[in-house]
Amino acid sequence: MTTSGVSEDESVTLDLLKKKMAEFAKERDWDQFHSPRNLLLALVGEVGELSEIFQWKGEVPKGLPDWKDEEKEHLGEELSDVLLYLVRLSDICGIDLGKAALRKVGLNAIKYPASKIQSQPNDDHNVNN
Amino acid sequence: MTTSGVSEDESVTLDLLKKKMAEFAKERDWDQFHSPRNLLLALVGEVGELSEIFQWKGEVPKGLPDWKDEEKEHLGEELSDVLLYLVRLSDICGIDLGKAALRKVGLNAIKYPASKIQSQPNDDHNVNN
Amino acid sequence: MTTSGVSEDESVTLDLLKKKMAEFAKERDWDQFHSPRNLLLALVGEVGELSEIFQWKGEVPKGLPDWKDEEKEHLGEELSDVLLYLVRLSDICGIDLGKAALRKVGLNAIKYPASKIQSQPNDDHNVNN
Amino acid sequence: MTTSGVSEDESVTLDLLKKKMAEFAKERDWDQFHSPRNLLLALVGEVGELSEIFQWKGEVPKGLPDWKDEEKEHLGEELSDVLLYLVRLSDICGIDLGKAALRKVGLNAIKYPASKIQSQPNDDHNVNN
Repeated sequence: MTTSGVSEDESVTLDLLKKKMAEFAKERDWDQFHSPRNLLLALVGEVGELSEIFQWKGEVPKGLPDWKDEEKEHLGEELSDVLLYLVRLSDICGIDLGKAALRKVGLNAIKYPASKIQSQPNDDHNVNN
Repeated sequence: MTTSGVSEDESVTLDLLKKKMAEFAKERDWDQFHSPRNLLLALVGEVGELSEIFQWKGEVPKGLPDWKDEEKEHLGEELSDVLLYLVRLSDICGIDLGKAALRKVGLNAIKYPASKIQSQPNDDHNVNN
Repeated sequence: MTTSGVSEDESVTLDLLKKKMAEFAKERDWDQFHSPRNLLLALVGEVGELSEIFQWKGEVPKGLPDWKDEEKEHLGEELSDVLLYLVRLSDICGIDLGKAALRKVGLNAIKYPASKIQSQPNDDHNVNN
Repeated sequence: MTTSGVSEDESVTLDLLKKKMAEFAKERDWDQFHSPRNLLLALVGEVGELSEIFQWKGEVPKGLPDWKDEEKEHLGEELSDVLLYLVRLSDICGIDLGKAALRKVGLNAIKYPASKIQSQPNDDHNVNN
């Protein structure tokens, strides 16, 4: 909890992360490397690291009940790396990621009406096509 | 701008997206499909679709000045798909993504002190290793 | 079986696929689009399509006993797409993929001596690091 | 050149790599870890490592004229890692990769007749969709 009484995670906005990433790059003179395709490939690299965590585990139950604290911490870091590059890529492309995400949730709701869909989301019924 | 005077994107928190994704799955009885590795592979699928947008374009300048509105809209949708599955995967794994991301930004700042780093972030100096 | 008595798949060399991809691009004047990073992103796109096949299935047994013929055919196409772009990327980068692969198998055998390794290949004991 | 007078890379078949990977796993008792989705995630991990090589480089010319020998060697290893897991994944799924790849080249030739296609392979004209 912060001093404002709001739990920290609830207050983490995509805009805050965007600003932090922009400052981080500026302070290190890294803007020169942050082109769209450079950032996209960096994102793919992080998705690879995320996948490596899960690669030899077989099916993993929700909540990761058998994982050690250090494994969960590592997972949190890789998930974050993907997020941070995604936020930065969106910013560099001039895309408002938060706005786009809310819009996409709305589009998905139209595409998959709750009252009609109860089956498996397959290739034809993919929520995020 | 919303009636509160806060622009919509500034108020989009990771927690809000997490709740929307959880509701969406629940309303469609899709929780049964949202295992960690299913969601991870869905995320990889969306990263693939994001990459396809950039695949034949050669280097792309920041801000995508030459892209049509519909191309930017499509890009926003694919960026969102990656984000939404990332948020959902984190939730299903019991990881607080916003908290983890802020922590990772802090770790990166320690690993790459602004006063010392001015060179290219390569394999050894990778901000998000 | 071909008339030579050698089954077709046994005779499919990486060099043959390289030549076929080079001809294919030349005949369509596509060499101009086949830069290393364009091909890499195309490869990532195909890996995404491959992942989509497996994304909602949960754990899948070896040999895919329950898959329909058309599903296996689709899988074969996506595996092939990844292979074909990998072969083309290697060629455009001036890398002899067959030679590199044999060398890597040898390096792996040194890194993981058969007599000593019986445990799970984890992050530290990863055969293909 | 081998003693047979055939250059080594020309004789590297997908079938040879399949056999080598199968032996490698058997000798280390790793068959138990080589399920389809485990191998797929391992493949994604290697694609990530491949992408990391290219991530901060901007556009890269064909043939990689400015790359050091050790960089090209590293690239060859990562390309090989992707190939080896792809070969292994295909084998475990019961897919004849060489046969499937030749078939896919044929399908692509039908989809994109050489006489008609001279434009950029975009989302609609994607050689490997």
